[in-house]
Amino acid sequence: MRWTIALHVTGLILLCVGLCMFLPLACGWYYDDTSVAPLFLSLCVTVLAGAFLMFAFKRPKPLVINHREGMVIVSLGWAACAFFGALPFALGGFPSFTDAFFESVSGFTTTGASILTNIEALPKGLLFWRSLTHWLGGMGIIVLTIAILPFLGVGGMQLYKAEVPGPVADKLQPRIKDTAMSLWKVYVLFTVIQVVLLMFGGMDLFESICHSFGTMATGGFSTRNTSIAAYDSAYIDGVITFFMLVAGVNFALHFQLFRGRPLAVWRDPEFRFFVILVLVLTVVVTVSIQGSSYPSWFDALRFGSFQVASILTTTGYATADYELWLPLSQGVLLLCMFIGGCAGSTAGGIKCMRVMLLFKHAYRELFRLVHPRAVLPLKFGPKLVKEEVLTSIWGFFVLFIVLFVLSALALAAMGVDVLTSFAAVVACIGNIGPGLGEVGPVDNYAAIPTLGKWVLSFCMLLGRLEIYTVLVLFVPEFWRK
Amino acid sequence: MRWTIALHVTGLILLCVGLCMFLPLACGWYYDDTSVAPLFLSLCVTVLAGAFLMFAFKRPKPLVINHREGMVIVSLGWAACAFFGALPFALGGFPSFTDAFFESVSGFTTTGASILTNIEALPKGLLFWRSLTHWLGGMGIIVLTIAILPFLGVGGMQLYKAEVPGPVADKLQPRIKDTAMSLWKVYVLFTVIQVVLLMFGGMDLFESICHSFGTMATGGFSTRNTSIAAYDSAYIDGVITFFMLVAGVNFALHFQLFRGRPLAVWRDPEFRFFVILVLVLTVVVTVSIQGSSYPSWFDALRFGSFQVASILTTTGYATADYELWLPLSQGVLLLCMFIGGCAGSTAGGIKCMRVMLLFKHAYRELFRLVHPRAVLPLKFGPKLVKEEVLTSIWGFFVLFIVLFVLSALALAAMGVDVLTSFAAVVACIGNIGPGLGEVGPVDNYAAIPTLGKWVLSFCMLLGRLEIYTVLVLFVPEFWRK
Repeated sequence: MRWTIALHVTGLILLCVGLCMFLPLACGWYYDDTSVAPLFLSLCVTVLAGAFLMFAFKRPKPLVINHREGMVIVSLGWAACAFFGALPFALGGFPSFTDAFFESVSGFTTTGASILTNIEALPKGLLFWRSLTHWLGGMGIIVLTIAILPFLGVGGMQLYKAEVPGPVADKLQPRIKDTAMSLWKVYVLFTVIQVVLLMFGGMDLFESICHSFGTMATGGFSTRNTSIAAYDSAYIDGVITFFMLVAGVNFALHFQLFRGRPLAVWRDPEFRFFVILVLVLTVVVTVSIQGSSYPSWFDALRFGSFQVASILTTTGYATADYELWLPLSQGVLLLCMFIGGCAGSTAGGIKCMRVMLLFKHAYRELFRLVHPRAVLPLKFGPKLVKEEVLTSIWGFFVLFIVLFVLSALALAAMGVDVLTSFAAVVACIGNIGPGLGEVGPVDNYAAIPTLGKWVLSFCMLLGRLEIYTVLVLFVPEFWRK
Repeated sequence: MRWTIALHVTGLILLCVGLCMFLPLACGWYYDDTSVAPLFLSLCVTVLAGAFLMFAFKRPKPLVINHREGMVIVSLGWAACAFFGALPFALGGFPSFTDAFFESVSGFTTTGASILTNIEALPKGLLFWRSLTHWLGGMGIIVLTIAILPFLGVGGMQLYKAEVPGPVADKLQPRIKDTAMSLWKVYVLFTVIQVVLLMFGGMDLFESICHSFGTMATGGFSTRNTSIAAYDSAYIDGVITFFMLVAGVNFALHFQLFRGRPLAVWRDPEFRFFVILVLVLTVVVTVSIQGSSYPSWFDALRFGSFQVASILTTTGYATADYELWLPLSQGVLLLCMFIGGCAGSTAGGIKCMRVMLLFKHAYRELFRLVHPRAVLPLKFGPKLVKEEVLTSIWGFFVLFIVLFVLSALALAAMGVDVLTSFAAVVACIGNIGPGLGEVGPVDNYAAIPTLGKWVLSFCMLLGRLEIYTVLVLFVPEFWRK
């Protein structure tokens, strides 16, 4: 474990993030609002901090990052972004640094949980920065899950080891840059298309960009108090539903599509599972809310599909208060919170790939009772799944549940009611945003006690980094030579 | 798969259960109440049905039951007991056969979920039968989990294969009878001691017996509308708390204790985990409810320890409405519902042994990230745990969650609110009894729709038989030659 490398790379990340603050600064300038001073100050501090780290801790040549250093850099990098990303909010008049940090970590982890009660009161520069944190976080996630985690052997992601060009052996080689570039092109292209399509629906450029950032990153920050419901447009709902689903699919598959291999996409077992899941759950919710909440089938489908896509991909945009829907719909959405999107997408949650393999394993164990001595290999599409991948996924699932229970109890100990505690925690570990109870789709996290906001911030970070990556830093063995 | 054997043994079980109906019949006779006719009729029908099956399907010599037949007998036996056990209730004036069956399956699975709104209105003969179903179910469970499941290789129970005298190889040999007898002696002895101790506290013989049946089986049926709260006695609360905890411990350990090996008990890793869990959770709940719900520490400890013991051992007796307690206590009790007691006890839930091994495995996976190539054997006390035991436990956990989610969604689809749906299902799969919401400790299951009661009955049976044993019957491969 060489701290020099970890701090050097963290500095590089901070420098990039700091430079990105130019965009909201320009936006604030254009609209001539109060965000200019806090953004400018934050930009300077972040760039200086990044530059200081980069030059104080020299980059070794060649830059070869090992296994452990990779995990430290990922955790430290995200935490540093969240910390410096909170500066514009803290300087821009947020009630406390806790609130500013919560909003920033929620942004960079693409969660979308907010402490703002009046979003529209915020100057446009800060609103833009808020949405940009999502987009930058989404970029980070794509590289993390497709190019880095498979090589760190985290939570079953090693299954994707050979999918895309990337680092080999247990060194994180420079080829990671090529992977990142290819995937980011797709990410940028989708964002641009969505911006254009939203503008066709009558949204202005500023709001189109902010909402596209929130969609492609499956984040969920909106520029309006009532989220997407503010536009009351079936067209806009449809565009956002489509792009939320797109963002919930493995970006390595999108890359394949652009390289002219649509069959590769359809052959992917996780993609099929995701599509079938979306269709089935949409039908269930639509049938459940038609009649009871919406007289017309069109509206039921419009609001049902939007909400299923929003929660399953862990985006968290809202067009309706689903807490008023029938119990079945609420139950389905609660289930969606746990499942999440595909691995390698910007979505959070347990992920479809893991859910599939958990199912397959459980069925195999049933089968084993019938034939106790049979050798039963487990397949994922055409691929044979190694037992080590399965045990890694199982471990992930257990850690997810343990983290969920302990954090929810911690929140309950602070006096938050049981339903809200459990829903807030799953909404944060799963990087969704809105939950149920007092943190439902028409509420926010302002009323959570200060200490609770820190617990939830930690949950967002752990959930985003697939739990293992952060928790491993707490294993004493990790720090031994 | 020889149906002859399965039906013969089911007949034998029914005959025994039918003969047991003499006890409530005698009770009804003594109190001269309206239960005599329904009990007498049910006794005749059950005994005749049992005798018919026994003689129609001849017992092969020697009686050697294999693997698959074992699973069919266990599932069929329990279902048959629940069906015939419902007759006294159905004939005795229950609103519907669904309600009678629900009450009976809740009894035999030692769940303790009731559809009765006025328990005290029931004649004493039926109340006695209701409690006796618990006690008989508890007897069945002890033999099932200690002597049968380890040999069927179900849900990690193979870990206990060498613990007690029992069948060898994959044949269920007659030595099962010796195991059963030894364990039942302990079970009967504890029940008698508890009856005597409860009578010291001023409870009459009838109620002492009924409540002891409910305690030792970790069932939870009471003869009073307000459960144990009706007695308002710290002594009675204490006695029942103690015996609930006793019933939540592996009966093979009790057997060791009686053979003069107290150290063997203390060395058992699951026993230690259970004791520490009880102590920690009791302290947490006591501290949480002192001041807010009870002014005195003594009362907080009395009600706190009772409720932790009642829910953790999945008994389900109530001395307080814990839904009025602070969120932390409710959260802890919700956690207890999932964990449950020790394997080999009459308690339900996931079981401490499995929870421990899930934890250990998750930690091992974290450790593996640090040392990817290390061989990391997993120990349970001094014993090395085979990987097949772990995968079996993992499969169990996944099936538990899947069953939980699907059943809860089914209930929600019938219009039951989300909290009640989820709590009712976990209270039934875990064989606890009371849940939260509309099936909380001061409510009952009367308001659940008819179809929902059947779903919950199925959940109770699956939970009681460790899920695998029933679900394997739905694997087509099971029925192939």
